[in-house]
Amino acid sequence: MVYDACVEVKLREGIADPQGSTIEKATANLGFSGITNVRVGKCIRFQIEAEDDQEANNIVTELCNSFLTNPVIEEAVIEIQVAG
Amino acid sequence: MVYDACVEVKLREGIADPQGSTIEKATANLGFSGITNVRVGKCIRFQIEAEDDQEANNIVTELCNSFLTNPVIEEAVIEIQVAG
Repeated sequence: MVYDACVEVKLREGIADPQGSTIEKATANLGFSGITNVRVGKCIRFQIEAEDDQEANNIVTELCNSFLTNPVIEEAVIEIQVAG
Repeated sequence: MVYDACVEVKLREGIADPQGSTIEKATANLGFSGITNVRVGKCIRFQIEAEDDQEANNIVTELCNSFLTNPVIEEAVIEIQVAG
């Protein structure tokens, strides 16, 4: 079966996020008020072929651990659903 | 009220995604098979103060149009929910 996978890679709490800070300052300068805690992550979407949900989940988890994230500073949230 | 907002900024369909292509090639080289259509987007999360859902949505939409996305090549998906 083909699954749609979405991996959100985000910086762990407490890790500085310069990109987010820059956006936060810019929003204030542009006249948007009340915007706080801006954090910027990556969203990696792809399709994957697997026998079942469990296998798809295992492959994506391995992919995350082996090279989509840097586990020291990043964490991943995985979402998988049947494509279509 | 305070809302949690998530803006997923992704390249429009048909726009080349070199980062995604690189990941796709790498997965094959690393022995993961059956992974296709890799697309990499940004996921911008923040908190926003607004009177109600409608106002929060309007502010975030304006923010997207004015500087979070490049509307020529990117599109945004907005999710908003009450924080907590």
